[in-house]
Amino acid sequence: MKSEDIPNSGRTEVLVQALPYIQRYQGKTIVVKYGGNAMINEELKTAVIEDVILMACVGIRVVLVHGGGPEIEAMLKKTGKESRFVNGLRYTDEETMEIVQMVLCGKVNKDITSLIEQAGGKAIGLCGIDGAMLKARRITTQDLGFVGEIDEVDVSVLNTVLDSGAIPVVSSVAYGIGDDEGHALNINADIAAAKIASAVGAEKLVLMTDVQGILRNVQDPLSLVKSASLEELEQMKKDGILSKGMIPKADCCGLALKGGVKQATIIDGRVPHALLVELFTDEGIGTMLFAEN
Amino acid sequence: MKSEDIPNSGRTEVLVQALPYIQRYQGKTIVVKYGGNAMINEELKTAVIEDVILMACVGIRVVLVHGGGPEIEAMLKKTGKESRFVNGLRYTDEETMEIVQMVLCGKVNKDITSLIEQAGGKAIGLCGIDGAMLKARRITTQDLGFVGEIDEVDVSVLNTVLDSGAIPVVSSVAYGIGDDEGHALNINADIAAAKIASAVGAEKLVLMTDVQGILRNVQDPLSLVKSASLEELEQMKKDGILSKGMIPKADCCGLALKGGVKQATIIDGRVPHALLVELFTDEGIGTMLFAEN
Amino acid sequence: MKSEDIPNSGRTEVLVQALPYIQRYQGKTIVVKYGGNAMINEELKTAVIEDVILMACVGIRVVLVHGGGPEIEAMLKKTGKESRFVNGLRYTDEETMEIVQMVLCGKVNKDITSLIEQAGGKAIGLCGIDGAMLKARRITTQDLGFVGEIDEVDVSVLNTVLDSGAIPVVSSVAYGIGDDEGHALNINADIAAAKIASAVGAEKLVLMTDVQGILRNVQDPLSLVKSASLEELEQMKKDGILSKGMIPKADCCGLALKGGVKQATIIDGRVPHALLVELFTDEGIGTMLFAEN
Amino acid sequence: MKSEDIPNSGRTEVLVQALPYIQRYQGKTIVVKYGGNAMINEELKTAVIEDVILMACVGIRVVLVHGGGPEIEAMLKKTGKESRFVNGLRYTDEETMEIVQMVLCGKVNKDITSLIEQAGGKAIGLCGIDGAMLKARRITTQDLGFVGEIDEVDVSVLNTVLDSGAIPVVSSVAYGIGDDEGHALNINADIAAAKIASAVGAEKLVLMTDVQGILRNVQDPLSLVKSASLEELEQMKKDGILSKGMIPKADCCGLALKGGVKQATIIDGRVPHALLVELFTDEGIGTMLFAEN
Amino acid sequence: MKSEDIPNSGRTEVLVQALPYIQRYQGKTIVVKYGGNAMINEELKTAVIEDVILMACVGIRVVLVHGGGPEIEAMLKKTGKESRFVNGLRYTDEETMEIVQMVLCGKVNKDITSLIEQAGGKAIGLCGIDGAMLKARRITTQDLGFVGEIDEVDVSVLNTVLDSGAIPVVSSVAYGIGDDEGHALNINADIAAAKIASAVGAEKLVLMTDVQGILRNVQDPLSLVKSASLEELEQMKKDGILSKGMIPKADCCGLALKGGVKQATIIDGRVPHALLVELFTDEGIGTMLFAEN
Amino acid sequence: MKSEDIPNSGRTEVLVQALPYIQRYQGKTIVVKYGGNAMINEELKTAVIEDVILMACVGIRVVLVHGGGPEIEAMLKKTGKESRFVNGLRYTDEETMEIVQMVLCGKVNKDITSLIEQAGGKAIGLCGIDGAMLKARRITTQDLGFVGEIDEVDVSVLNTVLDSGAIPVVSSVAYGIGDDEGHALNINADIAAAKIASAVGAEKLVLMTDVQGILRNVQDPLSLVKSASLEELEQMKKDGILSKGMIPKADCCGLALKGGVKQATIIDGRVPHALLVELFTDEGIGTMLFAEN
Repeated sequence: MKSEDIPNSGRTEVLVQALPYIQRYQGKTIVVKYGGNAMINEELKTAVIEDVILMACVGIRVVLVHGGGPEIEAMLKKTGKESRFVNGLRYTDEETMEIVQMVLCGKVNKDITSLIEQAGGKAIGLCGIDGAMLKARRITTQDLGFVGEIDEVDVSVLNTVLDSGAIPVVSSVAYGIGDDEGHALNINADIAAAKIASAVGAEKLVLMTDVQGILRNVQDPLSLVKSASLEELEQMKKDGILSKGMIPKADCCGLALKGGVKQATIIDGRVPHALLVELFTDEGIGTMLFAEN
Repeated sequence: MKSEDIPNSGRTEVLVQALPYIQRYQGKTIVVKYGGNAMINEELKTAVIEDVILMACVGIRVVLVHGGGPEIEAMLKKTGKESRFVNGLRYTDEETMEIVQMVLCGKVNKDITSLIEQAGGKAIGLCGIDGAMLKARRITTQDLGFVGEIDEVDVSVLNTVLDSGAIPVVSSVAYGIGDDEGHALNINADIAAAKIASAVGAEKLVLMTDVQGILRNVQDPLSLVKSASLEELEQMKKDGILSKGMIPKADCCGLALKGGVKQATIIDGRVPHALLVELFTDEGIGTMLFAEN
Repeated sequence: MKSEDIPNSGRTEVLVQALPYIQRYQGKTIVVKYGGNAMINEELKTAVIEDVILMACVGIRVVLVHGGGPEIEAMLKKTGKESRFVNGLRYTDEETMEIVQMVLCGKVNKDITSLIEQAGGKAIGLCGIDGAMLKARRITTQDLGFVGEIDEVDVSVLNTVLDSGAIPVVSSVAYGIGDDEGHALNINADIAAAKIASAVGAEKLVLMTDVQGILRNVQDPLSLVKSASLEELEQMKKDGILSKGMIPKADCCGLALKGGVKQATIIDGRVPHALLVELFTDEGIGTMLFAEN
Repeated sequence: MKSEDIPNSGRTEVLVQALPYIQRYQGKTIVVKYGGNAMINEELKTAVIEDVILMACVGIRVVLVHGGGPEIEAMLKKTGKESRFVNGLRYTDEETMEIVQMVLCGKVNKDITSLIEQAGGKAIGLCGIDGAMLKARRITTQDLGFVGEIDEVDVSVLNTVLDSGAIPVVSSVAYGIGDDEGHALNINADIAAAKIASAVGAEKLVLMTDVQGILRNVQDPLSLVKSASLEELEQMKKDGILSKGMIPKADCCGLALKGGVKQATIIDGRVPHALLVELFTDEGIGTMLFAEN
Repeated sequence: MKSEDIPNSGRTEVLVQALPYIQRYQGKTIVVKYGGNAMINEELKTAVIEDVILMACVGIRVVLVHGGGPEIEAMLKKTGKESRFVNGLRYTDEETMEIVQMVLCGKVNKDITSLIEQAGGKAIGLCGIDGAMLKARRITTQDLGFVGEIDEVDVSVLNTVLDSGAIPVVSSVAYGIGDDEGHALNINADIAAAKIASAVGAEKLVLMTDVQGILRNVQDPLSLVKSASLEELEQMKKDGILSKGMIPKADCCGLALKGGVKQATIIDGRVPHALLVELFTDEGIGTMLFAEN
Repeated sequence: MKSEDIPNSGRTEVLVQALPYIQRYQGKTIVVKYGGNAMINEELKTAVIEDVILMACVGIRVVLVHGGGPEIEAMLKKTGKESRFVNGLRYTDEETMEIVQMVLCGKVNKDITSLIEQAGGKAIGLCGIDGAMLKARRITTQDLGFVGEIDEVDVSVLNTVLDSGAIPVVSSVAYGIGDDEGHALNINADIAAAKIASAVGAEKLVLMTDVQGILRNVQDPLSLVKSASLEELEQMKKDGILSKGMIPKADCCGLALKGGVKQATIIDGRVPHALLVELFTDEGIGTMLFAEN
């Protein structure tokens, strides 16, 4: 069905049906982890930008956190950088970290910022180094080079930007503390989003992925779990229901919920305007996880 | 076509298409003159309330001005009040004015306020006496009793209410000055809306009527004038194109435009959600009049 | 003794003697329940308005709450409405409630507001529906129709108005919640004043009545109780000293004191400028009740 | 007539009659030059302090400027300082200036400040040196030592104090600029008050003197000029009507009026509560001078 | 070594080395007790003023508290006032108190204020009477006349002045409460500084003295105690290490530390720019006392 | 001479001599164009960061604008990008622009930001895309690809950052408007700094270069022009005194001066702490240009 086939009566009804959702989220903070196909496919990209601006327009304080795996990959290749692997994981040496920082903070971040500006929104591109917003230490479970885990989130810069009416776009690059004082550290963007959501007291964390959500049977699209409590999520994990790829996403949602975020939703970024469907319609989309009471 | 038949893809598209309109009106003031069938028919009433709350939700500063002819009529009849007519116009004597004030400020105004609160909005019911917001003198062209014309609009109370995030609902009863110091005066609600729109520096005045808009040929619904400049409007008036009933509406729009309001639109209040169609779709509805910039 | 006989030396002394009282109440909130003869007699009315403006002028945050029994009575008669009685109490059916709302919110409220404006003050007329300030449920002890008791007072609108420097004038009509969502409910004005006083953290509640205050012997004007603690009040009630008409007034004061208001005074509204005498002279007037420290 | 003979009805009438005056001056600035008998006689002193606090209480921004001739005289005598005279005027040498500064800023100023605090007001004692509020240069018409005339008034400190709700009490000692950079200079308190009144945009300057006001015939108390325009004042001066002692007072008022102050009143400080009589009664007191519209 | 011999490279290095100290104290409050030789010697005086302005310039909230023994002495002598002694302590009778107040508040205070203004700073001279900032009662351990001890510090005036960007200069004259309501009382300036430091939540109290600091052996300048905890200080006192003159200074520091001040330093005011050395260099100067943890 | 050889007396004298300069610039905005050797040499880099933090510490609103030629060069080489030249100027094609953006906004900008954070300052890294701060159009004088000239500077983001107490670090990458809507454009960093200085109403623009300043005789270091008015500058240009490399720097200063900036100084970035020498010493450094007032 094409949009131009919808008569005005249908259009206004759609707008009116969005009203209770707008009332619910107004003045609240929602952290969106932007990634996957929605960051590659041009049409999806445009849709996400529109969604984010619409959210900001109706008074939601949106924080957009992004990674950028494919772009990093491409640039590493372009510069002829050979990667070293440790237990199958890429080792982030000095030179790789430099590329990661350049690509994420200089390319991906500013391109998203520009898209928001082009669509009439107001955005400011930041990374964890700005105002030392994301303070991290190297992970110690294994030596992966300049890969960090967040120790502390300083929300003052985010609040300055949100209060000024702009959308902060945040790259997952952290400011090293401890032995790596001031050195940039590569961090997982999903976890960065979850940590930021907790720190700013977000109402909701939305993870954009390339899957439908949590499926009870990964082969059966109809087995989608529409919502689950944190407790139920942990039971599913124990029961081995979560697919291997889903486990880190689910853990990330759990992290946010335990940090005080009310809801964490895994949505299918391959569906255009999945954000709006999730936020402004009855059905929502994907799997919504919530803290008990 | 029923709303539940619209798939999510259609719904999100509708929301996205509203975005540029939201961006355009955000932070601006729109004065809506509420009246006619849209104030009588229950379904239309609900729709107007939803529209107004949605407007407030997306950051528009809405002022709702209302009259209430039929309710006044009914109460006059109920109290057995005999009306005196002067040149075919009802004479507003002391007792009639008392009824007018009671019905408008006490019944119609608070009922609209209650409807907005019920639908999750925030509203405060006011009249021209509050803060002496609408200062008026008796009209002098003919003796119609306590009928006034606005001398000055003091916008401080309106701004206090708007700044607090509430929707001011305003009855067309004024505070008399001069020889009628402090006496309530009956004023025309359309003109009150136009004067308020000028005083608050509104972006747009919307007059809800029971007609389609300005028709070049009153018999032909297809002859609707979609938009016209103030100059063109005056030409149409000279050319005798405006129907007798339309002339005061058109004059009222002219008053607003001359007072600095950018647009004044005559919309068909019989169409559900006419306000949303006018504000948030490409086509709009009714006749839009604009000042030559 | 006539005012013009007071020499300047006497006048200035009076002003100076008011000083400690002004210093005491400055910046504090005082809720005045306005009613009885003081609302009917023209001279008394003028005096109350002057008193209230003077209070506002010296920096007291005044809230004026009013009922309007006689005006409601008159309008019911005018419209030929036959009243039904239940155990001797008038039953507030739909039609009666409509009249109550119209008369209180549309007539009495706006007339008081206009008087304050005429005397150079700034006032805004409100009722419990505005901003759903007074949320009430039907009383359940007996079926009296649309008669409610206050469940919750939302002081945000009152504070917005007080902060803007205006005097809120409040009608005792509430916004129904629960089974009567959004329906107007008739509430007792004394109790509304007491509940508002508690909610805004008032320093003092003043009830204007048509009696001298609490008399130990209702026949003997010299038996006036000048002040009593909440405990003493309750003892007097137990001892059967309170007259039948005084009991609800006394209970209402008790309600305010238990709700954190420091003083509640029953004053004689038949005395011109009783408010000023109570607030700005040593002797005060009527019966002052206070919470034990 | 004694104050305790005034019944409550008289008292409240007095308060109510003050209302329009309070409304008129609220939020405005009034500069009072305090001096003469009113600074010596204990009863008068108490009355002035009460008046000033009452003024502040009703929202007037009061600035109290004082000199202190007799106290300076006494201290000079005590320290055995021989005065040198130039054309009959005392020469302010280094040592004399030191005494002047000590007595005015350390004794008189702080004593007045203390009196205001004792009476429940809030005051801060300042002189022209604080924040270099009064910048002056030595007068050049004749050599009188460290006697200055004000070059510039920096109102920022005064506004800080007034905005904090306190009454600034100001000694007529200035901060020297030019050749006397930083040296204290003795300045005329009347002129200091006039200059301050202009600089802060005062509504009114009140000069407390030991005479009734301007008399057409200095022998005849009934010849008091109740009010006069600046033009009329200048005519009286030309006509030789002003007494020798009155001329500098009148000139000082003229200075204020030309500097934008609306009214300048010469009042009789020997009358208790002359300030209140002037500000809060119909008749006023003394001679009120005003700028032609 | 002369300043002009320091090349730019040295100069900038000095500035840069001050940076961490500036960062440490920025936005914090430091109370300086100004006294001794630094208040007499012209060169030292100039240096203190420069230091204080520099402190204010880099964002430190400086409060300057001063006494003025020698000036009081001189004025007493000048006026021929005979002093009465009680147990070797001067008795502050009415007349003496008057001199004390005049000299401290009128002479010393305003002279310091003027010096700060001359050097381009902004200062406001105050005493404990202003805003009744220092409320005191007569000491009762022995009858010394109008000598008080501070009962309460009201910091509102100090904060108003500091927030306006000016340096408050405070004389050690208090506002009497209790039996001496409103009477000026003479108070010890060191203790006033300590009490003020506690009340404003100062980071540091600095006492300017005419000795090097605490010496383990009063004969040996090399025995200077560079820093000590409150506990260590008390041990030294018990061990009889503190000289008789040092005991009150040490007690005063203890008072501040117990009142929540982080550090209290006794510095040698005879060293030019001792304040800057203490605050902005590694070594510091004098004896720094600190509260444990 | 080594810093540790400077005694405390010298150190404090240096600090005190900086005082008038601090007073002069406090609260003012200074835009520093950072570039050349000072951005490459590690010791110089550290010195610049210290200088900038010190400036911020004493209340100067510092904006740091940077380019990054050498880093861009290196990355282009690394990625094997062949450059095309037009009239000897590098052509910025799509791929080159991508590298420029990545290196400036992602690498150089965030590295400077990190250095400031490491040294205890607070910084936020931005480029012209953020909040569309620098809006530019392609230059049209010749086709150099994505090279722009600034059309408009939107200072709202800069002011938000400065008001929050942070130092904005700005990359010279602009947001394209017109035919290149939203495309990143490469802009000259010197000119960006000059345009920003005008837009924010800066007191001073400082251009860090690798030369001494303007030399009358480029061979003779002693021929340095210490200061010149805009008029004199233009005369020198006409007279052919300016070296080829100096002309664009001089023009850039002229641009700022014509745009309302009071001073524009060309300093020698090869001198450690040149910024402090320029701002906080009598002699200053380099060539200071000023607008004729």
